[in-house]
Amino acid sequence: MPQIIIKGVALDQIRAISTDLIERLSLVSNTPKDYFILECVQSTFVFNGELAKPYPLIEVKWFDRGDQCKLAFATSITQAIRSLGYPDVEVYFTTLSPVDYFENGVPLG
Amino acid sequence: MPQIIIKGVALDQIRAISTDLIERLSLVSNTPKDYFILECVQSTFVFNGELAKPYPLIEVKWFDRGDQCKLAFATSITQAIRSLGYPDVEVYFTTLSPVDYFENGVPLG
Amino acid sequence: MPQIIIKGVALDQIRAISTDLIERLSLVSNTPKDYFILECVQSTFVFNGELAKPYPLIEVKWFDRGDQCKLAFATSITQAIRSLGYPDVEVYFTTLSPVDYFENGVPLG
Repeated sequence: MPQIIIKGVALDQIRAISTDLIERLSLVSNTPKDYFILECVQSTFVFNGELAKPYPLIEVKWFDRGDQCKLAFATSITQAIRSLGYPDVEVYFTTLSPVDYFENGVPLG
Repeated sequence: MPQIIIKGVALDQIRAISTDLIERLSLVSNTPKDYFILECVQSTFVFNGELAKPYPLIEVKWFDRGDQCKLAFATSITQAIRSLGYPDVEVYFTTLSPVDYFENGVPLG
Repeated sequence: MPQIIIKGVALDQIRAISTDLIERLSLVSNTPKDYFILECVQSTFVFNGELAKPYPLIEVKWFDRGDQCKLAFATSITQAIRSLGYPDVEVYFTTLSPVDYFENGVPLG
């Protein structure tokens, strides 16, 4: 945690931005870099009977860190993906509660 | 958004129903058709040590549009999937908040 | 439901633990075994520009069954995955509401 779950971006492109992006997110959230998970999901989008051109859709699963940090994450992720040449980027946040998160069987809250 | 995330249905089958389904969902929710994302996820189900026969399991990620619209979505999706020959269909809704959703870095709420 | 969505564990390994794990979860939750879905997701993790070694990350999507049952699930899943040789296991819970879950078009709540 946080998990950054990326759809619609090629794996090689995610690799290319991964180091800088995680460093940036680590900085703005004061969270160790190795807490982050960057996940590339290969799914397929369909529209009007055809395979649709994928576009970047990123879910952040995290514990709530406040609105300022949320905006900083959204901005950093959007900029990183746009630097790959994608004009449009959607980023959304799913908040988990520490009492629902278990590391090696122990709840974090 | 809304995202219709489909597991347990073959990609070609999703393509076959996509045009009519999105038209229907667009109509009942008064939402432009190109707001919808139809996503096909290829994951694997396991039961009793074996690969399990997949069955349709559909998640709708959306902003809350009320109970009447929710029922209309569930009904439309269930009918579309059943028309492919699947007897059982499960549809569930995950509600996102506009303040947690960023388009090009700008929150929607 | 409940759905046990597993990332970072090979499919054959999930098959190997599936029977005992579902039996255990069924017992502690007093839920029929065939209500459970064990799903193997093949996604890719990235860290520092490289493919990262996957590690077990398990999401349980369920209706709330209380803290005692949650702990029993987390413990059972963690033990099952550890028996495969993984030292670290993360398990988190996402709670769905029966009013948001439709079986064949009928809401469960």
